Amino acid sequence: MDEMHYIEEVNELLNKKDRKAISAWLFDHHPNDIATVIDELEMQKAAVLFRALPKAKAVDVFSYLETEAQISLLQGFTDEEVTRMLEDLYTDDAVDLIEELPANVVTRVLELATPQTRATINNYLKYPEDSAGSIMTTEYIHLRADMTVGEAIAYIRTYGHNKETIYTAYITTPHRRLKGVLSVRNLLMAKNEEFIADIMEETIISASTTDDQEHVVHLFSDYDLIALPVVDGEDRLVGIITIDDVLDVSEEEATEDFERMAAITPSEGPYMKTSVLEQVKNRFPWLLFLMISGILNGFILARYEHAYLAIPLLVTFVPMLTGTGGNAGAQSSTMVIRGLSLEEIQFSDWLQVLWRELRISLIVGVVLASVNFVRVYFTYGRNLGISLVVSLSLIGVVILAKVMGSMLPLLAKKIHVDPATMAAPLITTVVDAGGLILFFTISEILLQI
Amino acid sequence: MDEMHYIEEVNELLNKKDRKAISAWLFDHHPNDIATVIDELEMQKAAVLFRALPKAKAVDVFSYLETEAQISLLQGFTDEEVTRMLEDLYTDDAVDLIEELPANVVTRVLELATPQTRATINNYLKYPEDSAGSIMTTEYIHLRADMTVGEAIAYIRTYGHNKETIYTAYITTPHRRLKGVLSVRNLLMAKNEEFIADIMEETIISASTTDDQEHVVHLFSDYDLIALPVVDGEDRLVGIITIDDVLDVSEEEATEDFERMAAITPSEGPYMKTSVLEQVKNRFPWLLFLMISGILNGFILARYEHAYLAIPLLVTFVPMLTGTGGNAGAQSSTMVIRGLSLEEIQFSDWLQVLWRELRISLIVGVVLASVNFVRVYFTYGRNLGISLVVSLSLIGVVILAKVMGSMLPLLAKKIHVDPATMAAPLITTVVDAGGLILFFTISEILLQI
Repeated sequence: MDEMHYIEEVNELLNKKDRKAISAWLFDHHPNDIATVIDELEMQKAAVLFRALPKAKAVDVFSYLETEAQISLLQGFTDEEVTRMLEDLYTDDAVDLIEELPANVVTRVLELATPQTRATINNYLKYPEDSAGSIMTTEYIHLRADMTVGEAIAYIRTYGHNKETIYTAYITTPHRRLKGVLSVRNLLMAKNEEFIADIMEETIISASTTDDQEHVVHLFSDYDLIALPVVDGEDRLVGIITIDDVLDVSEEEATEDFERMAAITPSEGPYMKTSVLEQVKNRFPWLLFLMISGILNGFILARYEHAYLAIPLLVTFVPMLTGTGGNAGAQSSTMVIRGLSLEEIQFSDWLQVLWRELRISLIVGVVLASVNFVRVYFTYGRNLGISLVVSLSLIGVVILAKVMGSMLPLLAKKIHVDPATMAAPLITTVVDAGGLILFFTISEILLQI
Repeated sequence: MDEMHYIEEVNELLNKKDRKAISAWLFDHHPNDIATVIDELEMQKAAVLFRALPKAKAVDVFSYLETEAQISLLQGFTDEEVTRMLEDLYTDDAVDLIEELPANVVTRVLELATPQTRATINNYLKYPEDSAGSIMTTEYIHLRADMTVGEAIAYIRTYGHNKETIYTAYITTPHRRLKGVLSVRNLLMAKNEEFIADIMEETIISASTTDDQEHVVHLFSDYDLIALPVVDGEDRLVGIITIDDVLDVSEEEATEDFERMAAITPSEGPYMKTSVLEQVKNRFPWLLFLMISGILNGFILARYEHAYLAIPLLVTFVPMLTGTGGNAGAQSSTMVIRGLSLEEIQFSDWLQVLWRELRISLIVGVVLASVNFVRVYFTYGRNLGISLVVSLSLIGVVILAKVMGSMLPLLAKKIHVDPATMAAPLITTVVDAGGLILFFTISEILLQI
């Protein structure tokens, strides 16, 4: 990795106190690479390197830093430095930072903000986590419908400096209701004399402040947007969301689903930076809960002791039956959970999903059972009874698994529980219980034990 | 959903043959929404609706259509219509389409393309699937270093019409080597008299045509890009990738990982549009393979028949032990697979990962085992031997599961197998086998059976 190389290089320059070389290195590298180095340096060196940055680049680098490094730098800042940083950060980055700060630091930071910035930040802090409001920014380009293209371009060239994206401009009514959207592309392609009102797009895709950020991702990917206006309950424009933030949200949401689906409480940081104790805390509760469910399955097995003492062979089919059930269920639940996340499946589709999964499980179950029938029949002295019991149970388990695997996430969605919690680990435990009962019941009936 | 509503609305207009209302509806709606309707309409009506579109919007709508609808429309096109569509589509969209077309249609389409477009498309078709080359486009803005800002803006306003993004411009040497990058934002913020050479960014983040598209996603998310230049083996600029395509790639790659991790062969289409037989084909092979592994675990269990006939109670601990092992392993493998996908973990980190997982599994294992010890001790008449056997086995299984779960994906990465195949289903089967052997071996030793 380049990263290790960068850190060594900078460390050496810092040790030599070679100011000129440090400035040159900072000039040559991307803010993200500089931030990666500062994240890894010891605190004092990090502060020295950060102070060597030109002011404009410092804000950029700061916004790429991990929260830990941001807080540690911030605590060494003078009052003026805190104020400048707050004013220069885009609102969404400033809010992200403040949400992570310890309470005493928050107080100091908010006191140092200008009244206007403080009001904006306080306003943001009211939006629910993971809502469109919490990821929007208020720095956007505002145009008037009666401007000409030439005037609009001049306006953007003069006032666009501190806007997070200048590539989409918004036109509102005097009551701040959104009236039109204009991409800078279309603005530049138009003639100077044309009016904004005549070239703006009036079919507007927008989100509401309370929309889930996952829904925002779908709007961007469905409509190939690079920015999305956000409106409040009264349909007034209050901010925009830009696509670079959306890519991060999309990755974050997928990571959270991966974690939930593996029975892990989602955490913020990357794997290598999350402490062992934090990881234990994220993994232990679900393992304990599932272990207790596993114990209950043990009780079910114990109820059939007479059966497996009469025919000890029966026990040896249990791993194959429960394993196949677990895997078949995981397939269905994963397809449905992902489909729900991507808004490709809705709760109202449940009957169609059920019908699909029933047909899939019947085909898959019958083929697997046939393979097993032949295998058991010839391995265990052509015992028709046992072969039949195992095969019928297998078909039953696969159907049960696929129905549970597909229906439980939909049910979760309906009752506003995250569908991702209805994934393999839980499905497996539920299907194991059903599978054991099914297998031994069929055994008792067909083998008369 | 709006979608159903749109389809009914359009169907009614089409039945009434109300041309005026159809035109108005097409004018009012976003190309993506129109495409969704065309995807769902019967073929003839779809063609009528498509032909009612103004030419410029038709290309946009076409690029949003599902492949099936694209092919069916294309087959009804006149030669001129095919040629125009090919020339108007962005190269990446045209290539995507051609990759999906039946062979005979490809021949016709390529014959109808202009020689230049044909050459470009043929060139694209050489790039490996899922490489940066396969998702780039060749329509980008090229500026000269000796242009002034005023000249550059005028150039973009004149020639920017058919470029996929005008928001980043590229400056190259006479040998087409990439020399600088300039965002239109910085261009607009500069003074008319300044020279491009003085304001362009020379620290350039770029990808190579053969880079994996997943790596491209990380470059966009790490450096907050909106476009990325792609260079060939000789460092010459050959195309760009735009962020709207990257968001789709990111979702696609995550979906593929979800599917692989649930033992499903990744498929192209969304769940509701993939036929039952296709789904069976994607799910069956892994289920069969894992079932056979499950059968092998049955043989392991059979080897210890004497043990569980001597103490039938032992069998009832199996679901809890294998279940907990499977879940503990799934947690570790998911964290490592996702970390590898996001490039947060490298193969070279394996020793650190191992050391983390060992500590996590020891803590988790000991706590779970303690809970179990108390439970077993008091449930089964204070039997110290069995309590100890179950608890020790549980610690062993959790450690085994977390080590296997974290190391197998890293090993897969090393030998160029997709780490996502080393997920819960396979890990569970492997850990089940190890867990059974461990449990019965400890039983045999401590309980002297």
